[in-house]
Amino acid sequence: MMTTAPNRENILQAHELIAPYIHRTPVLTSVFFDQLSGSNIFFKAENLQKIGAFKARGGLNAILQLTEEERKNGVATHSSGNHAQAVAYAAAMVGARAYVVMPDNSPEVKVKAVEGYGASITFCKNTPEEREATVQKIVSETGATFIHPFNNYEVITGQATASKELIEDVDIHLDMIIAPVGGGGLLSGTALSANYFSPGTQVYAGEPEGAADAILSFRSGKIEKAPYVKTVADGLLTYLGDKTFPIIKEYVTDILLVSDEEIISAMRFLWERMKIVVEPSGAVSLAAVLKNRAIFEGKNVGVVISGGNVDLGKLPF
Amino acid sequence: MMTTAPNRENILQAHELIAPYIHRTPVLTSVFFDQLSGSNIFFKAENLQKIGAFKARGGLNAILQLTEEERKNGVATHSSGNHAQAVAYAAAMVGARAYVVMPDNSPEVKVKAVEGYGASITFCKNTPEEREATVQKIVSETGATFIHPFNNYEVITGQATASKELIEDVDIHLDMIIAPVGGGGLLSGTALSANYFSPGTQVYAGEPEGAADAILSFRSGKIEKAPYVKTVADGLLTYLGDKTFPIIKEYVTDILLVSDEEIISAMRFLWERMKIVVEPSGAVSLAAVLKNRAIFEGKNVGVVISGGNVDLGKLPF
Repeated sequence: MMTTAPNRENILQAHELIAPYIHRTPVLTSVFFDQLSGSNIFFKAENLQKIGAFKARGGLNAILQLTEEERKNGVATHSSGNHAQAVAYAAAMVGARAYVVMPDNSPEVKVKAVEGYGASITFCKNTPEEREATVQKIVSETGATFIHPFNNYEVITGQATASKELIEDVDIHLDMIIAPVGGGGLLSGTALSANYFSPGTQVYAGEPEGAADAILSFRSGKIEKAPYVKTVADGLLTYLGDKTFPIIKEYVTDILLVSDEEIISAMRFLWERMKIVVEPSGAVSLAAVLKNRAIFEGKNVGVVISGGNVDLGKLPF
Repeated sequence: MMTTAPNRENILQAHELIAPYIHRTPVLTSVFFDQLSGSNIFFKAENLQKIGAFKARGGLNAILQLTEEERKNGVATHSSGNHAQAVAYAAAMVGARAYVVMPDNSPEVKVKAVEGYGASITFCKNTPEEREATVQKIVSETGATFIHPFNNYEVITGQATASKELIEDVDIHLDMIIAPVGGGGLLSGTALSANYFSPGTQVYAGEPEGAADAILSFRSGKIEKAPYVKTVADGLLTYLGDKTFPIIKEYVTDILLVSDEEIISAMRFLWERMKIVVEPSGAVSLAAVLKNRAIFEGKNVGVVISGGNVDLGKLPF
């Protein structure tokens, strides 16, 4: 288990390790969005990733590094959905058992997908406390290795490979990269990759107004919870961890809030104009760019589209 | 104007000519679809093309080859949607006026997009005869060059570049490529590219049962109309032309019919599992592969996803 934040070499090695199991997702561009935003946007389409989200990267990196002994006891996690699928998928790749704790209001499409990878699901109430208690019980009963959805250096290292690819696949220097922030696994990995592989590239985060813990933490300097949690971006409900927050504090330029209305509008634009299926959390970065022309205008901006797992029967538009 | 079917050199030149104005769309793979079909599928995602469909290629190739004099008088066409957008987009690229005749039941998203490129739209009844009469009137009044949606060698040559890219971007030899057939522009271009750039690769077509003209023509040896026209695949309503049909007759292995139910099911699978927005016509190739395991099992199959222009407010599922 890594005990310090990933260095450049860790990310390079993780990328080699997980490469056979992931898609090198395309970087998409669109004149429409360039005109709408006034900037040059390079979309990293992680909704086209295995399991429909960047989370496959972190789950794989954590599970591929387990010893044979650890794999025998299986892995466990809690997640509102995409990390659950990532762990179930990665466990299936190495033939390990996966125990997944999911909130009882998880989108049906995500539950089905986790089941599809052969994981054992335990449902619980959708509070961070309840989820952690349930998974701890499973871990003590089975000896499974707990794979935290974000507050885990192997996971952070895996997520960092998305922006490493983005930086490699864009011919010009990116002025900024923006990623959504929930627990901060993707954001901290993005920040580290920008720092190591594209010095001078600023990293921003988009966060829903209805889960505004990261911006509070960023301003106060310590991990805070959101004053209330209610947003369509169901992948971004959690608060930061003691492994993700220090990296974010050091390397992230700013966190930008967006409303659910702005998220849904950006999401619909992506479906209609880019022809890609994006979940609300996956549209948060674009929503923040469209809202903050003063920051992004005239810049080369990498926009991480984090995922595309959404119930087609329950669209917010 | 080309007066004979495109040769290898024509396609190479067309690709260079249009390359600055198109996306080199990604080739996507999915373990899910490989398992479902029993074959190795390489999806050419032309729904991610400019204007949301492969038609951008043909429209560009036709319009970029016009003389300055011809460009001054503008271009005209009729189309149920994607070719309309392609002509409008290509005309905008060279600063020419575009006159577009559209059926009065065209999907709103397609009408809006054509307007967005600054074209002049004339609506008419949705019959091939009515559409051709209306566009001929415009041509005689304005001197615009008519760009036929498929029965035009420059257009066929442009469409051929999609499978040229697919062949180049897949590392292994494709046993087959399958494309949808409406008027046959994409299919004839696909067949020529397979013949020139991947000898031995068979070309199949998928066709809706509710617009089954191409299969009749293929069997009888002369251009036939469909016994009835009623399908969700609104991009495939037309019958073959005297330029597309001879190419199809010579180079296509077979045409496979699929029902609307099978089209909608394949479409929904693509949205849910590939996270891409595909229109009904764009899912016809996949539907045909899933229906005909006996043909495609164990093979490396290129599947052309032709477009993604669909009204999000009027989904068939």
